[in-house]
Amino acid sequence: MDERRLEYLIEEKKYVTLKRELEDMNEVDIADLLESLDIHTGLLIFRMLPKDLAVDVFNRFTVEQQRSVIELVNDKELKFILDELFFDDMIDIIEEMPANVVKKILLHSKEEERNLINQFLRYPPESAGSIMTIEYVDLKKHMTVGMALDYIKETGLDKETVYTCYVTDMNRKLEGIVSLRKLVIADDEATIEEIMDRDVIYVHTHDDQETVAGVFKRYGFLALPVVDKEDRLTGIITVDDIMDVIDQETTEDFQKMAAMSPTEERYLDASIFSLAKHRLPWLMVLMISATFTGGIVRKYEEVLQAVIVLNAFIPMLMDTGGNAGSQSSTLIIRGIALGEIDLKDAGRVIWKEFGISLVVGTLLAIVNFFRVYLIDNVGLTVSFTISMTLIVTVVMSKVVGAILPIIAKKMNIDPAIMAGPLITTIVDALSLIVYFAIATRILHI
Amino acid sequence: MDERRLEYLIEEKKYVTLKRELEDMNEVDIADLLESLDIHTGLLIFRMLPKDLAVDVFNRFTVEQQRSVIELVNDKELKFILDELFFDDMIDIIEEMPANVVKKILLHSKEEERNLINQFLRYPPESAGSIMTIEYVDLKKHMTVGMALDYIKETGLDKETVYTCYVTDMNRKLEGIVSLRKLVIADDEATIEEIMDRDVIYVHTHDDQETVAGVFKRYGFLALPVVDKEDRLTGIITVDDIMDVIDQETTEDFQKMAAMSPTEERYLDASIFSLAKHRLPWLMVLMISATFTGGIVRKYEEVLQAVIVLNAFIPMLMDTGGNAGSQSSTLIIRGIALGEIDLKDAGRVIWKEFGISLVVGTLLAIVNFFRVYLIDNVGLTVSFTISMTLIVTVVMSKVVGAILPIIAKKMNIDPAIMAGPLITTIVDALSLIVYFAIATRILHI
Repeated sequence: MDERRLEYLIEEKKYVTLKRELEDMNEVDIADLLESLDIHTGLLIFRMLPKDLAVDVFNRFTVEQQRSVIELVNDKELKFILDELFFDDMIDIIEEMPANVVKKILLHSKEEERNLINQFLRYPPESAGSIMTIEYVDLKKHMTVGMALDYIKETGLDKETVYTCYVTDMNRKLEGIVSLRKLVIADDEATIEEIMDRDVIYVHTHDDQETVAGVFKRYGFLALPVVDKEDRLTGIITVDDIMDVIDQETTEDFQKMAAMSPTEERYLDASIFSLAKHRLPWLMVLMISATFTGGIVRKYEEVLQAVIVLNAFIPMLMDTGGNAGSQSSTLIIRGIALGEIDLKDAGRVIWKEFGISLVVGTLLAIVNFFRVYLIDNVGLTVSFTISMTLIVTVVMSKVVGAILPIIAKKMNIDPAIMAGPLITTIVDALSLIVYFAIATRILHI
Repeated sequence: MDERRLEYLIEEKKYVTLKRELEDMNEVDIADLLESLDIHTGLLIFRMLPKDLAVDVFNRFTVEQQRSVIELVNDKELKFILDELFFDDMIDIIEEMPANVVKKILLHSKEEERNLINQFLRYPPESAGSIMTIEYVDLKKHMTVGMALDYIKETGLDKETVYTCYVTDMNRKLEGIVSLRKLVIADDEATIEEIMDRDVIYVHTHDDQETVAGVFKRYGFLALPVVDKEDRLTGIITVDDIMDVIDQETTEDFQKMAAMSPTEERYLDASIFSLAKHRLPWLMVLMISATFTGGIVRKYEEVLQAVIVLNAFIPMLMDTGGNAGSQSSTLIIRGIALGEIDLKDAGRVIWKEFGISLVVGTLLAIVNFFRVYLIDNVGLTVSFTISMTLIVTVVMSKVVGAILPIIAKKMNIDPAIMAGPLITTIVDALSLIVYFAIATRILHI
């Protein structure tokens, strides 16, 4: 169904057809459709949905839409939604809602749940605890496979997270895991202890979500258990939530690498002032730093007065240096983020960048020499000065672009900060120093 | 177990302990450990592993290690590995191996399998077909749940991919899906037809892997069916493979945005010449483009001779413009990649960037004015000229940085190309034109 058909069915009041067609659709697509309607019509259709589906659809609404629904539904409906939502999704919603809506939500949850909510809200943002859910299947090792399957049938009805079951002891300590696949395949009489996997890989509630994403990527798991300081199982994280984390972490890297302070706000939802606030600080720092580069130009005013043509090649030298350095720093930053480049590789990386920069710099310098000498008709010695500077600039830029992210990593700063903008500012100053040094020597100014 | 313990156990020839401890470990960690050994000791330990685990470990080896193992094992061992590997993993390995190793692999596969391999190798790179696997559970709709579970027990032993089962008709056309969770929970006597989900979301063999990743992110699936042109089920893609695709596509974006042609080669594995080859073309194009900026400087030589101090602020203006433009283009490119920004949002985006740039540009200009006027002791009119240029430059940069990725998207070019380096080159030229235009008017040169 598309928006046109939806509108047609609503206009013609063909609600039975509408209901039937919606029931066959995926919740994500239904949520998208309903968002195209005004809130009251949307709520009307939303109420037609089978209750389980309605909760899934609710979970896929935008924050704005969720807020409207919570404000407009009656107490019984709200209670149903809250009861059926996965715990981690409920926490996400609570975190996004204004105070009056949160109050309405808390009013409709049981005391025990309220305590749990408060506990979850205390986990640091972007920690494993803040993204985990508490719905999982816990088995005991003395159970038989048949008992375990019956237990899953009874309790596991709404748990997407049923594919890995967790075996815990009396103190909730994690003893092993069993996949649903293993349970289905195993003999009904076998005990959980016999078929469980004891080599459990887990994370701690306070681990950073980036670390958790790394574990998922490394092992290709569908879910990962989360334990507290006393090694008790407190929740699990599922792979679909990790996909969001990966996107979020990558976006943060992109933002940092383009000299912005990171934010989770979606671009179109953010206000002009909020966006400006994230961009101004680094622009200011870099602007002030760039005046040092200006200082170098001022210091060599006489050289420029003497051979004014030198001035015209400053932008090209600065840009090429900046670009060459950005290439290197980007690859190194990404390599570090993916775990492909480690501190112990520092020597190899720098050596490699040195080699690459010699190759690239020399080729650029040759092309540049002929262009400046033959097309721009600049004199031989000046053309030579420019090309020599170009080689040195490219080599310096690439080596600096490689070293800075590694130093950052070593100092536990996010390497993403050592990207294009900062590298460019540093390399600009260096390339001008080299330019004037070579010029004064070769041209005897 | 860590490398030290491994070496100790090997040295002391405590093979029984070694074997027992390895068996409790995850295959990813075993593969890492074995890679620290020389190939012959590694192979010795590898052969100790239970066969199923050995195949999993083999699958996690690096290409280099896999090649050595294939070359060194005997025919029977190779046959076992090949039989037990998932089909998509085998295809990946074949694609990476040199010709003589591929020959050895093909020699040990059945004819029917050889045909399938050839068919798979013909799918375009980065297509859904090239990353799918052919191992999945296919059910018929007249089966009962009990029959289906028995069928899975019989055939599904080594299929990690068992959590979603596919219901096909006589012509292999996809009719529905059933999750293993539903099968376990459902009544044994129910038919598949009664419990299957008919709203199946699928992709085509020739769809781009980026599209496939988008579907996974949107719906949060664990697996996705792939159909051919005649809508027949030909394979499935699982979420763990998609995590690799997401990383790969993000790395490509990073590379393009830093003016490099994309490559899948890992940084440390790539040769200096291969890396240089991916970096040179854009550096060359941008270097030549930057000479136009130089041309502008040359054209205004007299202005600079008259007020030489203007020269010193060119680097700052160029850098700030480049940084401001990169911020905007990065956010827009990322927004487009995540599907958060669409062509229809173009107007809003440009308006937003205009607003942001006015706020940011004005604040930068004020700080700059006081800095230049009070600290650098530059005259009032020149200080004013510089600050005015700064505002105009920031506004232009941000608007250009926002428009170019959108235009690229509209023209079906990858927006990632319209990033920092290209924006900087364009904005450099624009900012100098503005600078000289304002200077000649205000300073009456």
